[in-house]
Amino acid sequence: MSTEVSNNCVIFTKEFETGLPVINEHFKFIERKINISSTKLEKDEILVKNLFMSLDLWLIGGLKTGTKSYLERFAIGDVLKSSCISVVVKSNNDQWKEGDLFSGFNGWEEYTKVTPEAAKQALSYKQYLNYALDNGIPLSYFLGILGVPGMTAYVSLYMIGKPKQGETIFISTAAGGVGQVLGQIAKLKGLKVVGSTGDDNKVEYLLNELKFDHAFNYKKVDIDHTLKEICPEGIDIYFDNVGGETLDIVLTHLNEDARVISCGMTSQYNVESSYGIKNLSVIIPKSILIQGFLVLRHYGEYHDSFQKEMLQWIKEGKLKYKEHVINGIENSPQAFLDLFDSKSFGKYVVKINDL
Amino acid sequence: MSTEVSNNCVIFTKEFETGLPVINEHFKFIERKINISSTKLEKDEILVKNLFMSLDLWLIGGLKTGTKSYLERFAIGDVLKSSCISVVVKSNNDQWKEGDLFSGFNGWEEYTKVTPEAAKQALSYKQYLNYALDNGIPLSYFLGILGVPGMTAYVSLYMIGKPKQGETIFISTAAGGVGQVLGQIAKLKGLKVVGSTGDDNKVEYLLNELKFDHAFNYKKVDIDHTLKEICPEGIDIYFDNVGGETLDIVLTHLNEDARVISCGMTSQYNVESSYGIKNLSVIIPKSILIQGFLVLRHYGEYHDSFQKEMLQWIKEGKLKYKEHVINGIENSPQAFLDLFDSKSFGKYVVKINDL
Repeated sequence: MSTEVSNNCVIFTKEFETGLPVINEHFKFIERKINISSTKLEKDEILVKNLFMSLDLWLIGGLKTGTKSYLERFAIGDVLKSSCISVVVKSNNDQWKEGDLFSGFNGWEEYTKVTPEAAKQALSYKQYLNYALDNGIPLSYFLGILGVPGMTAYVSLYMIGKPKQGETIFISTAAGGVGQVLGQIAKLKGLKVVGSTGDDNKVEYLLNELKFDHAFNYKKVDIDHTLKEICPEGIDIYFDNVGGETLDIVLTHLNEDARVISCGMTSQYNVESSYGIKNLSVIIPKSILIQGFLVLRHYGEYHDSFQKEMLQWIKEGKLKYKEHVINGIENSPQAFLDLFDSKSFGKYVVKINDL
Repeated sequence: MSTEVSNNCVIFTKEFETGLPVINEHFKFIERKINISSTKLEKDEILVKNLFMSLDLWLIGGLKTGTKSYLERFAIGDVLKSSCISVVVKSNNDQWKEGDLFSGFNGWEEYTKVTPEAAKQALSYKQYLNYALDNGIPLSYFLGILGVPGMTAYVSLYMIGKPKQGETIFISTAAGGVGQVLGQIAKLKGLKVVGSTGDDNKVEYLLNELKFDHAFNYKKVDIDHTLKEICPEGIDIYFDNVGGETLDIVLTHLNEDARVISCGMTSQYNVESSYGIKNLSVIIPKSILIQGFLVLRHYGEYHDSFQKEMLQWIKEGKLKYKEHVINGIENSPQAFLDLFDSKSFGKYVVKINDL
């Protein structure tokens, strides 16, 4: 019996230098097939069916020339990559069997052949994926609140932010996949939480659903003036996901010994000339710390404490999480572009296949 | 018998906004007298004769409007302040007697009446000043290698730099009061030490006297190109005393987990518009840490370990130190201006009186 099934995917077709990629010019959806029974697996390889795939702004670093990115550029013709939640459909690895839940940096495709190394790395997720399935927690959460964005929030806040009760934290892109988790953890830790976002609906969400102390639409206000008004006591932790002018303004609002978690500079992804930060000298008299954060470098250290504490909070209803689910791999290129619109809301997840 | 003696000083006469202060317009030397025997001391006050006074670039923050400085602006008519090594000539404090050596933030003047609080703070220095006197170590060293600049080097390197054998450190203003100490400590810790300075004589000094691995005159080379050539392995620690364009260039040469000790932005002291840092986003993929450092905030923690380790190294001849001694308080205004010339060399110290 043939087991040939569709294995549609999105491939990289041309590098570009400025702005956003154009569908069918720089990346495109293509239809393919895979014959599962005839797919050969080397020792310790596994074949997985991808269920959910994450869409993230930083993936643009894999497509764009000249971007300072932590992602290696894709090669022309390659299937794009992203984090996926998957299920094993074929295994040549003693530690994985058909039906096991899997999490890894797979392709924008329906089926991925996983290397022995990636298979080994994913082992630490198995118990938590099963725990979620048993407790009615959506598996797609492992791409967001329980995946890279959630871990980014959790680890960066603990490791660099070192939050203390009564302090004030300001979060840019507060309604994004990382920001919404970070703000809620900060609230659980007793901080005053302030967030900015680029859309009024998101402001409402931050205030009414996530119970931020303050939130504002950065497009409609003078950021400097607004921060003076709502944080007269100054800012102790700044979670910076935008860089540029916002960072420059926030620098002047920081308290002594403030910590800046530098996690992204989205304002600088699509500009021809970088914004020049002018207020950096304030860090000297105030002993301010600015640290770049890349969660991929801290997986090991925090993995178990993160999964355990977060799964517990989610089970107890202490953390809310907003997802935007796109159905079908064929819709992922457009969804990726939509993500750069500031109206994009919540964690973008593509549902590729059913379990 | 009258004990009226000269108590000449330098006072602040007018604020200014850009460039350097002008002698007799913004600050000026004036002649005064003091009658020691009739000088009244409140409980716990002491009167000291100043022997040596430190001249430092950052003192300009006390004179200039609009400067982002950690020094409070002086008031018009006030005697300027600076760190001094002094000897007690009169005391109303049980813990201080005539002839005791003293170290504190006194005035640009021959005699200073010291507050009870400052007298208390200075107690921790007494044993080390006596140790130096007994071991032939110049007392003026407590304004440099054993004072604020040396402590800046020592504490910032240990606290933020966290040097590891085999790493590479790059030091801007390497021949200055802080840089020359920092480079030598880094050598003692087994690092590859590279320094920049603005004068060929200083380059020679760094290479031949202090045994830096590399040194260059930043005015004569392309910094980016030079760093590529002499640090192909990248930079692990950057001691930044200049900010501006140099910082922007160095950012692109930093390794993963590099540390930037942000200690001064001298390139920005006398400019009308701050340089905008464009390469800050490199800190994200490389988890780079940038931390502002102000030694005044860390005196307590490191005071004893600093004095003990440094006095030992100096006694053993493991640390060299270059001073530029100016004789007479009347010459201090011009010497202060000279300090801003990149030919200024070594720690500027004004000898005010003999012991």
